[in-house]
Amino acid sequence: MTVTTRTIRGCSKATATIATPSDPLVTELGQRLDHADIAYETWGTLNARRDNVILLIHALTGDAHAASHHPKDAPGWFEGMIGPGKALDTNRYFVVCTNLLGGCSGSTGPRSINPTTGRRYNLSFPALTVRDLVRAQKRLIDKWKIRELHAVIGGSLGGMQCLEWAIMFPDRVNRIVPIASSSRFSPQGIAYNEVQRRAILMDPNFNNGEYEDDNGPAQGLAVARMLGMITYQSDDLMSARFERSTEARYTEWPEFQNRYDIEGYLHYQGDKLVNRFDANSYLYLTRAMDSHDIGWKRESYDHALSMIEAPTLGIGISSDILFPASYTIEFVEQLREIGHHAEYRQIESIDGHDAFLKNFERLDPLVRDFIQG
Amino acid sequence: MTVTTRTIRGCSKATATIATPSDPLVTELGQRLDHADIAYETWGTLNARRDNVILLIHALTGDAHAASHHPKDAPGWFEGMIGPGKALDTNRYFVVCTNLLGGCSGSTGPRSINPTTGRRYNLSFPALTVRDLVRAQKRLIDKWKIRELHAVIGGSLGGMQCLEWAIMFPDRVNRIVPIASSSRFSPQGIAYNEVQRRAILMDPNFNNGEYEDDNGPAQGLAVARMLGMITYQSDDLMSARFERSTEARYTEWPEFQNRYDIEGYLHYQGDKLVNRFDANSYLYLTRAMDSHDIGWKRESYDHALSMIEAPTLGIGISSDILFPASYTIEFVEQLREIGHHAEYRQIESIDGHDAFLKNFERLDPLVRDFIQG
Repeated sequence: MTVTTRTIRGCSKATATIATPSDPLVTELGQRLDHADIAYETWGTLNARRDNVILLIHALTGDAHAASHHPKDAPGWFEGMIGPGKALDTNRYFVVCTNLLGGCSGSTGPRSINPTTGRRYNLSFPALTVRDLVRAQKRLIDKWKIRELHAVIGGSLGGMQCLEWAIMFPDRVNRIVPIASSSRFSPQGIAYNEVQRRAILMDPNFNNGEYEDDNGPAQGLAVARMLGMITYQSDDLMSARFERSTEARYTEWPEFQNRYDIEGYLHYQGDKLVNRFDANSYLYLTRAMDSHDIGWKRESYDHALSMIEAPTLGIGISSDILFPASYTIEFVEQLREIGHHAEYRQIESIDGHDAFLKNFERLDPLVRDFIQG
Repeated sequence: MTVTTRTIRGCSKATATIATPSDPLVTELGQRLDHADIAYETWGTLNARRDNVILLIHALTGDAHAASHHPKDAPGWFEGMIGPGKALDTNRYFVVCTNLLGGCSGSTGPRSINPTTGRRYNLSFPALTVRDLVRAQKRLIDKWKIRELHAVIGGSLGGMQCLEWAIMFPDRVNRIVPIASSSRFSPQGIAYNEVQRRAILMDPNFNNGEYEDDNGPAQGLAVARMLGMITYQSDDLMSARFERSTEARYTEWPEFQNRYDIEGYLHYQGDKLVNRFDANSYLYLTRAMDSHDIGWKRESYDHALSMIEAPTLGIGISSDILFPASYTIEFVEQLREIGHHAEYRQIESIDGHDAFLKNFERLDPLVRDFIQG
């Protein structure tokens, strides 16, 4: 199937089929998806040579809506970085962002209907790894006959995928920008994810994943998000924003003896996620994060690293507690030791892990120089 | 009531009544406890002048059993620090450790029977602050006619109480050793506690605190403990101990798609706590931690600090993520700035917050010099 430039230009929000019974997606763990769609959004124009593509990859609870498409559109999660004259300059580049496989914002995931059974997959959906998320995007890129990606960029779970893109498809990626990420997810990170999963699994409404849309494990998902939010921020940021104030700005949850502002904030963030995200997707995508280790099922970690050909810009965040900057520094230095082109830049910020979704003014020049330079 | 030295010597594990209807304990928030007992253990001998007392204070889920009393006794949580010739030298000092008010190891807490109603207090128990925990210990000390404490020492929640002892009863404390603590609990710390509380509160067995002993919120308490354990350790420690191994040593919990060793470890720690600790106590004592701010309900933070007369040894742990060493450094420097005797020492360790329960060989010389010197 040929997709013309015009089709893509005219379709800034769309869905593409990337797996069919005759061309199933086989996961890293050997399971088979006979049907899969991927939702995506695009900005800018694919050029005739199809070589101006930037693939942008979202984090755990993100989606394809990385930036608004017109003034009345809702802002996206990378709003400050995409547009005419911005780091991901839509005058020059064709920027693509997909909703991850396993997600819940248009792409096939555990809450999708399995056409074979007519029922939701729920926990019968195949377990996912970071590599499967990359495979799904690769199929979209192939479908569009895009030979080489000018750049792959993403933060957190998105950064993990940048590295896997470069290792799995070295001749298809010209540069990568993994932000606030690592070459193997830490045991501490797995630990945080596991507590979050257990909060969901213990919710009586979880029902082994077979919940109703309007009666899901809202409490468990909210508690999971509360913990996630702590790991995305920093001690200094929370101290600056909330102090020890008991003047809570969000008071929807019954209090237990007291209500600190920081607690109300976490409840608010929990409730907000419940309204936009699915619990089964949360379980699947945290497990995908856990799987991340470039050396896994390969000859060795060092060998996996040596497979990266794409010039690499690793960006760390000084106050990140989920992906300490040292993890990015580590793989950048390892790449340099074996003579590969790799650079490290750091964002000095108290915003913690989430700085890559906020500190665009600091991120812009770093990304701009590397991608446009 | 006079308690003779002999009585105390002969009774290394005992319980004392510290509140009665005619002498109730009134909490910081104005609630009244007409009955309260405090369980305690002692080591060494109270001297005739009653001036060789070291009060040791436990952390969130600790108890009065800080050290074994004879070779066949179970080791305590401060085992390496208490005994003849050790830092808390029982040849010289009379060491006392109480189970905290609100605890569940012999002292009156939310699971105790309210003599007035004949039923458990559960959530009708008064809300507790760090100051109330200190008041309860003070009543025991008064009962024993002990005028001055040679030293008050404790880590974490115990360290908070060291500071409050020095502020609330400046003429009764000769030196304090707050370890891995702070002068006001951080918003991030409150946030971690709140996630833990919510895991308990959402457990259907919680039943608003009115659970049966053999059918309590075990899942919620275990998940709370899992998160607690992450904050008591460090990224480096977990990486060293568990790597990304999927050879889990504890496999009691149903797995979700996989089982990393770090996950089995957290499940194990969760189950272990459920077998020895009460969920209502967990809720009450985390809220007591949250309350900690020496400036709260006082003229000002600075004024509270200036009330400390006791020479202070603040000990921080290099890898502590729950009470970063900077918090201890902060109040030590503030004390020094106003001309008070305050010292800071740091334990270099990858053991995280829990280092004060493990690294006795490093803690011993610091505490020894300050207490015995």
